[in-house]
Amino acid sequence: MYEREIQEIINTALKEDIGHQDMTTANLIPEQQQSTGRFLAKASGVVAGIKISQKVFTTLDPSISFEIIKHDGERIEVGDTIAIVKGKTASLLTGERLALNFLQRLSGVATKTSELVESIKYYKAEVVDTRKTTPGLRVMEKYAVRVGGGRNHRFGLYDGIMIKDNHIKSAGGITKAVITLRQKVPHTMKIEVEVENLLQLQEALDAGVDIIMLDNMSIEDMKTAVDITAGKALLEASGGINEANIVEVARTGVDLISTGAITHSVSSLDISFDIIMVEGD
Amino acid sequence: MYEREIQEIINTALKEDIGHQDMTTANLIPEQQQSTGRFLAKASGVVAGIKISQKVFTTLDPSISFEIIKHDGERIEVGDTIAIVKGKTASLLTGERLALNFLQRLSGVATKTSELVESIKYYKAEVVDTRKTTPGLRVMEKYAVRVGGGRNHRFGLYDGIMIKDNHIKSAGGITKAVITLRQKVPHTMKIEVEVENLLQLQEALDAGVDIIMLDNMSIEDMKTAVDITAGKALLEASGGINEANIVEVARTGVDLISTGAITHSVSSLDISFDIIMVEGD
Amino acid sequence: MYEREIQEIINTALKEDIGHQDMTTANLIPEQQQSTGRFLAKASGVVAGIKISQKVFTTLDPSISFEIIKHDGERIEVGDTIAIVKGKTASLLTGERLALNFLQRLSGVATKTSELVESIKYYKAEVVDTRKTTPGLRVMEKYAVRVGGGRNHRFGLYDGIMIKDNHIKSAGGITKAVITLRQKVPHTMKIEVEVENLLQLQEALDAGVDIIMLDNMSIEDMKTAVDITAGKALLEASGGINEANIVEVARTGVDLISTGAITHSVSSLDISFDIIMVEGD
Amino acid sequence: MYEREIQEIINTALKEDIGHQDMTTANLIPEQQQSTGRFLAKASGVVAGIKISQKVFTTLDPSISFEIIKHDGERIEVGDTIAIVKGKTASLLTGERLALNFLQRLSGVATKTSELVESIKYYKAEVVDTRKTTPGLRVMEKYAVRVGGGRNHRFGLYDGIMIKDNHIKSAGGITKAVITLRQKVPHTMKIEVEVENLLQLQEALDAGVDIIMLDNMSIEDMKTAVDITAGKALLEASGGINEANIVEVARTGVDLISTGAITHSVSSLDISFDIIMVEGD
Amino acid sequence: MYEREIQEIINTALKEDIGHQDMTTANLIPEQQQSTGRFLAKASGVVAGIKISQKVFTTLDPSISFEIIKHDGERIEVGDTIAIVKGKTASLLTGERLALNFLQRLSGVATKTSELVESIKYYKAEVVDTRKTTPGLRVMEKYAVRVGGGRNHRFGLYDGIMIKDNHIKSAGGITKAVITLRQKVPHTMKIEVEVENLLQLQEALDAGVDIIMLDNMSIEDMKTAVDITAGKALLEASGGINEANIVEVARTGVDLISTGAITHSVSSLDISFDIIMVEGD
Amino acid sequence: MYEREIQEIINTALKEDIGHQDMTTANLIPEQQQSTGRFLAKASGVVAGIKISQKVFTTLDPSISFEIIKHDGERIEVGDTIAIVKGKTASLLTGERLALNFLQRLSGVATKTSELVESIKYYKAEVVDTRKTTPGLRVMEKYAVRVGGGRNHRFGLYDGIMIKDNHIKSAGGITKAVITLRQKVPHTMKIEVEVENLLQLQEALDAGVDIIMLDNMSIEDMKTAVDITAGKALLEASGGINEANIVEVARTGVDLISTGAITHSVSSLDISFDIIMVEGD
Repeated sequence: MYEREIQEIINTALKEDIGHQDMTTANLIPEQQQSTGRFLAKASGVVAGIKISQKVFTTLDPSISFEIIKHDGERIEVGDTIAIVKGKTASLLTGERLALNFLQRLSGVATKTSELVESIKYYKAEVVDTRKTTPGLRVMEKYAVRVGGGRNHRFGLYDGIMIKDNHIKSAGGITKAVITLRQKVPHTMKIEVEVENLLQLQEALDAGVDIIMLDNMSIEDMKTAVDITAGKALLEASGGINEANIVEVARTGVDLISTGAITHSVSSLDISFDIIMVEGD
Repeated sequence: MYEREIQEIINTALKEDIGHQDMTTANLIPEQQQSTGRFLAKASGVVAGIKISQKVFTTLDPSISFEIIKHDGERIEVGDTIAIVKGKTASLLTGERLALNFLQRLSGVATKTSELVESIKYYKAEVVDTRKTTPGLRVMEKYAVRVGGGRNHRFGLYDGIMIKDNHIKSAGGITKAVITLRQKVPHTMKIEVEVENLLQLQEALDAGVDIIMLDNMSIEDMKTAVDITAGKALLEASGGINEANIVEVARTGVDLISTGAITHSVSSLDISFDIIMVEGD
Repeated sequence: MYEREIQEIINTALKEDIGHQDMTTANLIPEQQQSTGRFLAKASGVVAGIKISQKVFTTLDPSISFEIIKHDGERIEVGDTIAIVKGKTASLLTGERLALNFLQRLSGVATKTSELVESIKYYKAEVVDTRKTTPGLRVMEKYAVRVGGGRNHRFGLYDGIMIKDNHIKSAGGITKAVITLRQKVPHTMKIEVEVENLLQLQEALDAGVDIIMLDNMSIEDMKTAVDITAGKALLEASGGINEANIVEVARTGVDLISTGAITHSVSSLDISFDIIMVEGD
Repeated sequence: MYEREIQEIINTALKEDIGHQDMTTANLIPEQQQSTGRFLAKASGVVAGIKISQKVFTTLDPSISFEIIKHDGERIEVGDTIAIVKGKTASLLTGERLALNFLQRLSGVATKTSELVESIKYYKAEVVDTRKTTPGLRVMEKYAVRVGGGRNHRFGLYDGIMIKDNHIKSAGGITKAVITLRQKVPHTMKIEVEVENLLQLQEALDAGVDIIMLDNMSIEDMKTAVDITAGKALLEASGGINEANIVEVARTGVDLISTGAITHSVSSLDISFDIIMVEGD
Repeated sequence: MYEREIQEIINTALKEDIGHQDMTTANLIPEQQQSTGRFLAKASGVVAGIKISQKVFTTLDPSISFEIIKHDGERIEVGDTIAIVKGKTASLLTGERLALNFLQRLSGVATKTSELVESIKYYKAEVVDTRKTTPGLRVMEKYAVRVGGGRNHRFGLYDGIMIKDNHIKSAGGITKAVITLRQKVPHTMKIEVEVENLLQLQEALDAGVDIIMLDNMSIEDMKTAVDITAGKALLEASGGINEANIVEVARTGVDLISTGAITHSVSSLDISFDIIMVEGD
Repeated sequence: MYEREIQEIINTALKEDIGHQDMTTANLIPEQQQSTGRFLAKASGVVAGIKISQKVFTTLDPSISFEIIKHDGERIEVGDTIAIVKGKTASLLTGERLALNFLQRLSGVATKTSELVESIKYYKAEVVDTRKTTPGLRVMEKYAVRVGGGRNHRFGLYDGIMIKDNHIKSAGGITKAVITLRQKVPHTMKIEVEVENLLQLQEALDAGVDIIMLDNMSIEDMKTAVDITAGKALLEASGGINEANIVEVARTGVDLISTGAITHSVSSLDISFDIIMVEGD
């Protein structure tokens, strides 16, 4: 992730939470008081975003020290210490909630992703994300998907060509759409088409597309699609894929399985922050 | 919600998704082609954010017309049309994903909130949110909580005083903390204290605080807390409250029940966007 | 005050004054020349904003050293040195005017506030500010009020409920307004009502409001209001209060006296900045 | 004034005041209720900033109608209606304080300026402002000075050359400074020098400067300066000039009289905003 | 081009040129005076950016009418009228220079591109741009390349993979680099490698890359490269290509010819803006 | 140049080029790998912007060391090393293109300017720039003009008065325009008028303007203009001046020669960046 972009998201979020001032802390805690705090796992999963949590604190107060115990990608179990934070009590108290909000959400994404990845590890298919991310947090959530072992699809409308059914409808068919785009977009871009049946699949293959998304196809059709395609394009299964059916999908031999649920319907991973020592106690 | 703040969030999110250009649409769809699209419920729940979806489209293209069928707060069932959008095909295709990302998430929040609210409707307790919201989207998510029938807690660190256990530890006790804050913060602010047991509850009552949060207390202790307090302060139950135990908590007689799960662990409500007519088809 | 907000105000103000370049200094002063400058009191009063002045210089040039002699809240007399600044002559000359503009205005606010506070020190009433502040500088001016011994009212429309006469008119009366707001705003917010006579006062008390503003009431009526209220709500006197009548108002027994003049009609405190030594002189 | 700059100042100020929402108005006032409000003079003076007040309202709500009765530059007396505002009650209530904060301050500046201008109207000297303006509001305050009949000095460090005593000290004398600057700055810029005595005046004249500021000179010396200069440069009197001594200064024959007090030590002009009719009343 | 991005560039540029005010026009031209102006070709070439010029004026003043005579992509000859602008004289005078600065530069880019495109029109090779664009104006300049008949390469470091010689050096060879990237980047991205000789070309082909850039290769080697590659990858010639040698390069049979000169070393196309009628003349 | 303005331009440009991430480098280069790179002259000319290139790298990565060998204003010949950069390979690879884009363009401007300056060094006339600069980069390009030995004209519409033919047409003549402006603009501003013939020249002189621009005048008329003016105003020749005719123009005795070509039609100076050592090689 590009550092400046992360920094801007953090700045916006700090402003959202602090506003003109943390009225409780600023009026209550002695300015020079030092403390030590700890991020503690209260559920098991995969850590993601610990450096973002660190940056929340160092943005608030560059003098804070932040020791990472569990790095992004590591598994945590209940009771694990994830990081130790030392510095002004006031900075710790003002920053903890936002640091947790990032860490818990991103760890939730990484954990959910890793579960899917684990479940299909004996197949060639890779778990891929979508554009169904939280507005404003896409770079972070796509990072968490990678941390969880998944792979990224395009980042936005600007860095990948995807001809969806609505495009096909408006453009007058797959073949025509592919020809038009091939002439106009940078030669550096692959072309992906979303197909709903085997007829469309054949048309896409004939048009020479690079990637074909099989949208809400039956397991049976997916298998046939894999046979027909025979490596001439990447095949991406998509639509309603979840823990329950992902293995079956992987077994068809598709190359990629994309799912929006790993970013749009995630439970935060339960993590707490506690002050474990106040200077002078 | 203050309009300009909503607009800024939408601007940022559009930029995140579109970048320099929607390469597929801009190179494929005839600039003047008109279409009609529809937001369709694929699950039942409570709508929230439909005006935000509208603004996504009108920000992209002020000439788009957007007819709302199901307003925020209305229940929807599978198959319901939520809104009809008419305008340039290109604008519809470029804006649909972001419009859905907002609408699905906020409807998810409203739906989850409304379920909790419904379940305790025979008790006086109100469902209240927390600061465990998505960084950058707090005003929207807190709005969705209200749409779902819940009530908002403070919006940030700036508009409410909350003395949490970490504050108590650093400040040298509840009584001392309350005295200090009462002298220094605007006279317009209430003071809330988080207590973990009945001893602390008594200290908070003696200090004359306005609101007391009962943090992870047993049902038994909550009942006693209600008796002891006898209306001298508002009582807010908090910590690990979910569908399974909320009725039991409400039954204790507390005034408010706060839960982070309605914003940090929400499933998007399933809604789709389809082009239902392309001009000239 | 939240540091990032202060920094943004300073950045904007530096840009306003410097534009593309300080044409005189940049073209005249040898880049590496060092000097020492001094902030000097040319009138007596209370210092406020010296750290903001410091940040003006360090924003321009992080290598500048800034020694504070008189801290915020200290009284100064004519001839007192308030701070010593050392560093590149060019940075000193480019930053001095803006540093003074902040320091003189805020010290003016603190000085005026402290005079009012001093004059009623034998009464319980506290001096409170208003929203009649300079657009864009509210956090700074409210800070200066605190430095001068005053207390802050709400910071904006977002962190306090104030039902003014225009609201009462539109909402259909005090009682109705209070009931509506009590149901809808966060339980963490107090409710304040502005009343113009004793009848309204009684209605407000009956509605159970937390704070009552006595708007332009006679001294006689204020006394009666204090008697009637008997501690059941905080009483805030407001409207046309100045040096001449504040003691009389305080004597009535009200809890708070709010005045816009301490921020909207302030004379800058006279302070100068002189280069006292140029390296190599 | 450049419109976009004014708009940015208003946007920042609205955000400062409204934050996430006007909690009182948004929760109390029926969204569609219409009202009529009025700006009313409660003191006499010169109006400045009425279009800025208008833009505050139209920024909040483009549907508001705003009829200006007294335009910028017109004198007002107690009881005069300055403008009539019609539209949603909620928009009127949310915007009124900020609209007044701008209008009262700028009218205060224009009023104070016009008094000085009036007092020396039989002399050729013009009243000129300084850089001692409110950080962030300079373009507005300099506009108000023009409205009051004054003339603007340079707007910042970027659009005028001013060699002050601190520059002279660092640069090694007036002559040397003038030669250096004449070679390096755009040929479109005039050069002004600040002198403290007649010796320096002569040096400045010999160096061929365009404008000479007479800093804190005695009336006697100013007269001599006018004689010596004999039109070879513009003469600007400065330093401690106020209502009491400005006529005497003007009488010396100087071309310009600059004063910081018209922007840094101004009383807001007393103006109120009242809802005069609520629809349906 | 995404409209909001264009708007931001224009806003920044207007601020850069106007600052606090167009001092000449604002103080000289009667506010309501209307005029008609004309963009006139003073050299022949290809128009690009006329809608950007239009937006410069409408951003300044939404009431301006702007009639486009020669659209982007059309050829113009000396004396041709490109557009007619009607509206307030002041708006025309304030906006003309910036409108020309955009129009002349972009038309310069389109003209230069179209000359290269024309010269190789009998070959399959396409003219492609690079990242050697003007900082801040890339989307505009890449648009002008398309207008001139060229094709865009990747827009930045985010939307295309390009393994350059410096990458190869650091990564330990082409093969290793390609394997690493293929595993980690989105499956939607093509991989391009820059090679300097036929040995590297063979390695790149063996690694299965999608595009190969032939960097500063001899004509002879390019021909051999085309033979060896035989359509298994796209071939892009690059390095020191200009009007003098582009035909020779195209003749080798490469697919693409990229050149930085069409954006980094361009002469503005000579276009003027004249007021042709002032209302009341 | 004001540092913060430079920093903002760099930030915008980095974002434009990097977007969400440098996909090649971030996924390929070991994060801790160190390298040494070099800026190498591939053409002769004058360096300008080397500190801006430095800031590009240090903005990306504050740990980078950047040794400048050839400073701004120094001449370089083919093969000269301009700077040595050491630090993380990834930072070097991500920043190199933008660093070059600034350095090559600005060195191009300085080189072209210095050639014109050199060619008229035996005359008093100075080479002056215009407002025909790249939108968004004016401060940098005007800086490069100074580096090349040229002089700056006004920076924008805000810091200089220039009455052009379009103004004269709308304002009703030179004399009237000068009188109006003299009364209204700050006394610190000079007034320049653009004239097309000797009649207008005489009118401008009679009106007492400070600077007269001779627009597209014949050499003969320029000579006469110099004679008539006799030092009573600065004379600036303008319009179609280039390498071929500048000496002839200078010989007429004008004070200044302004040309847009030094900023709007410049070839980038050829400079490359090479990794010369990778740690561990």
